[in-house]
Amino acid sequence: MKIELLCTGEEVLSGQIVDTNAAWFADTLMNHGLELQRKTTVGDRMEDLVSTFQDRSHYADVILVNGGLGPTTDDLSAEAAARALGVELVENAGWREHLEDWFTKRGRSIPASNYKQCLIPDCAVLVDNPIGSAPGFRIYLNDCWLFFTPGVPSEFKRMIEEQFLPFIKSEFGINESTRLHKLVTIGHGESTLADQLAVIDIPEGITLGFRPSAPHVEIKVFGRGEAAINAMPAYIGKIKNTLGTAVVTERFPSIALEVHTLLQGSGKTIAIAESCTGGLLTSQLVEFPGSSDYLVQGLVTYANTAKEKILGVQGATLKQHGAVSIETAAEMALGVRASSDADFALSTTGIAGPDGGTKEKPVGLVVIALADKQQCWVQAINLTIRTRTLVRVMSCAVALDMLRRRLMDENPIVDYPFIPRTEERIL
Amino acid sequence: MKIELLCTGEEVLSGQIVDTNAAWFADTLMNHGLELQRKTTVGDRMEDLVSTFQDRSHYADVILVNGGLGPTTDDLSAEAAARALGVELVENAGWREHLEDWFTKRGRSIPASNYKQCLIPDCAVLVDNPIGSAPGFRIYLNDCWLFFTPGVPSEFKRMIEEQFLPFIKSEFGINESTRLHKLVTIGHGESTLADQLAVIDIPEGITLGFRPSAPHVEIKVFGRGEAAINAMPAYIGKIKNTLGTAVVTERFPSIALEVHTLLQGSGKTIAIAESCTGGLLTSQLVEFPGSSDYLVQGLVTYANTAKEKILGVQGATLKQHGAVSIETAAEMALGVRASSDADFALSTTGIAGPDGGTKEKPVGLVVIALADKQQCWVQAINLTIRTRTLVRVMSCAVALDMLRRRLMDENPIVDYPFIPRTEERIL
Repeated sequence: MKIELLCTGEEVLSGQIVDTNAAWFADTLMNHGLELQRKTTVGDRMEDLVSTFQDRSHYADVILVNGGLGPTTDDLSAEAAARALGVELVENAGWREHLEDWFTKRGRSIPASNYKQCLIPDCAVLVDNPIGSAPGFRIYLNDCWLFFTPGVPSEFKRMIEEQFLPFIKSEFGINESTRLHKLVTIGHGESTLADQLAVIDIPEGITLGFRPSAPHVEIKVFGRGEAAINAMPAYIGKIKNTLGTAVVTERFPSIALEVHTLLQGSGKTIAIAESCTGGLLTSQLVEFPGSSDYLVQGLVTYANTAKEKILGVQGATLKQHGAVSIETAAEMALGVRASSDADFALSTTGIAGPDGGTKEKPVGLVVIALADKQQCWVQAINLTIRTRTLVRVMSCAVALDMLRRRLMDENPIVDYPFIPRTEERIL
Repeated sequence: MKIELLCTGEEVLSGQIVDTNAAWFADTLMNHGLELQRKTTVGDRMEDLVSTFQDRSHYADVILVNGGLGPTTDDLSAEAAARALGVELVENAGWREHLEDWFTKRGRSIPASNYKQCLIPDCAVLVDNPIGSAPGFRIYLNDCWLFFTPGVPSEFKRMIEEQFLPFIKSEFGINESTRLHKLVTIGHGESTLADQLAVIDIPEGITLGFRPSAPHVEIKVFGRGEAAINAMPAYIGKIKNTLGTAVVTERFPSIALEVHTLLQGSGKTIAIAESCTGGLLTSQLVEFPGSSDYLVQGLVTYANTAKEKILGVQGATLKQHGAVSIETAAEMALGVRASSDADFALSTTGIAGPDGGTKEKPVGLVVIALADKQQCWVQAINLTIRTRTLVRVMSCAVALDMLRRRLMDENPIVDYPFIPRTEERIL
């Protein structure tokens, strides 16, 4: 089945709006074992829309059209669909009633411009939009289904999941069951993961995909058909055995959300002292509602005086070993834990670049420590040849992984093939 | 002139790589007064590429093809271009020499796969790539120029600026001079900015554009031709008069970079105490190299105990007024400034949501304070009906704007039409 995506709208074309719908759509198709063949973006010009509907319908089996169903004059999709078919726009009485009902319930009268949204091409099939004023619809043109959806991401996504996917599965007789399982890794490259997994026989009907998104590489295991789905648990077990410590979460899209959830469940608290990551580590946890349950404090101590005064790092330590050292990182973690009486503490100190490196302590050198009430684990990692942003992002991932392992009663310090460790110490 | 963009590659099509080249290209064209008409993305399939080159060349005057020039087997653009023209690929002797020279100078021999990159269609014109191994080239097909560039963003951008734009300007006789000036605003909506500016007469040859990107809305003033360019300074002056306090920077893309630069230039230091923004404010400054010059410390004090212990907020203040209050925000800023002896301090405390709100203190209520060695300015703003992320992002922008105004000797507290202020106090 040849599926194409057609996005409309000047804001998308001009790059004013980043086209997240398109990436989400392609990814969602892949999660259902379907493939996007082509993506076209056109502006709000009638002749472009009409000719594109007509042209592409000769190549594709299904075209998902996104956008242009709003109430304003530059929303042209319904009119263009009617012209491509050579029919008139007609008012859909059911949708008009639905809209009037919706506004009446809220004590408002329906704005005149919204009546435009009740017009769909004659012989089009209405597609329900459960959360917006613009209905979707589908038309059949040159042996191709064109499926129209609004551009608003929440409406678009819901209609794809509830309407579009069931429709094409039924229309094209795709009734095989499928299953997708994702494993999120850190510290490995896409190709080294692929190479490691190449030695395991893949059961028939299962495909593997890799999706890098710093600091993670996501592994997608896709099974098509009953036999493949039944073979998945054993196969996933082998993947995990082979990759060892690389997999950091299977249930969430990020290690930060995994750690957030583990912390919430543990009833334990945490304090954070950051230098080179500059608030990013704390910020990654604060992003999640409920983080106030466990986060006591996060301190960004850039200046040495702040490290001494707030964290209680010894002046002698800073003088003898420097701010980026195993000793300083350890004292930062121990200091912030003790002063907050939290169960755990994390600290980072390093040289994020692009300046400030020396031969002995190059840009990309980061020292990370995890302390609990008994022990303190410290490691120095080498993130050279990364941008300043990437140094900070990768450092946060390693720090979170140390805490994650501790929460799981595993050794907090492990090898990451793509993140060389230059030193480690347990106090 | 009809310009289209054609992106190739499965990673782009499948959404594994977010297509930043496309948005950048459209934006860059606009900055030169040119308009992108259509964007097409196809996978690595020969017949799709060939038919798309042929089809679109009938509509467009110029097609910028991006990607597919690498050394691997799924890089098909040069071969597809040759097939579309009905010619052979031929080795470009000059590029071969250039590549051999490049590798020899680095003491390496040229990998076999790189020889493929010396092949371009017969009768194509080579386009120099000053920083990569894949040359660009252009071909003329059905009265349309197809201009081929590599997908690597740094190479792509440089070739667009140094080769593509001069080429089409000369080819299509565009020799009018143009100028673009950007004004970055906060606290206003796109349409209210447009409405406010609608009352000013726009000089002939000047166009206005708006680009929302939270927390900013960027205003683009584009002038075409000498007369328009000469009229720009006066017109921009009128815009700034009309918008009053909305414009936060004209020289940088974000208020954070403006404040970073002002701080660096001032020789002053800053300390930050964050609650609801949870490290984001500190992190936005740490993003810039050199922030260690002025940032003494950034403290995220989520728990009340941390506010008391680290910032010296009075237990009685927390008890009487609550953590989200004018009084607490002021004590946070005063406390972190005093303990660090920084010249300035910023503090934030609020309810980022989605839970935790009450009728009196709803989700979206944020209190922000700025302290210097003499005074403290505090304001409570109302960011209801925003997501948790947006509450945090907008709060940071307001905090930065307070500091920016203070650094410019202006009143730190001003009205933002889209961010209602519910309370203010100067101590």
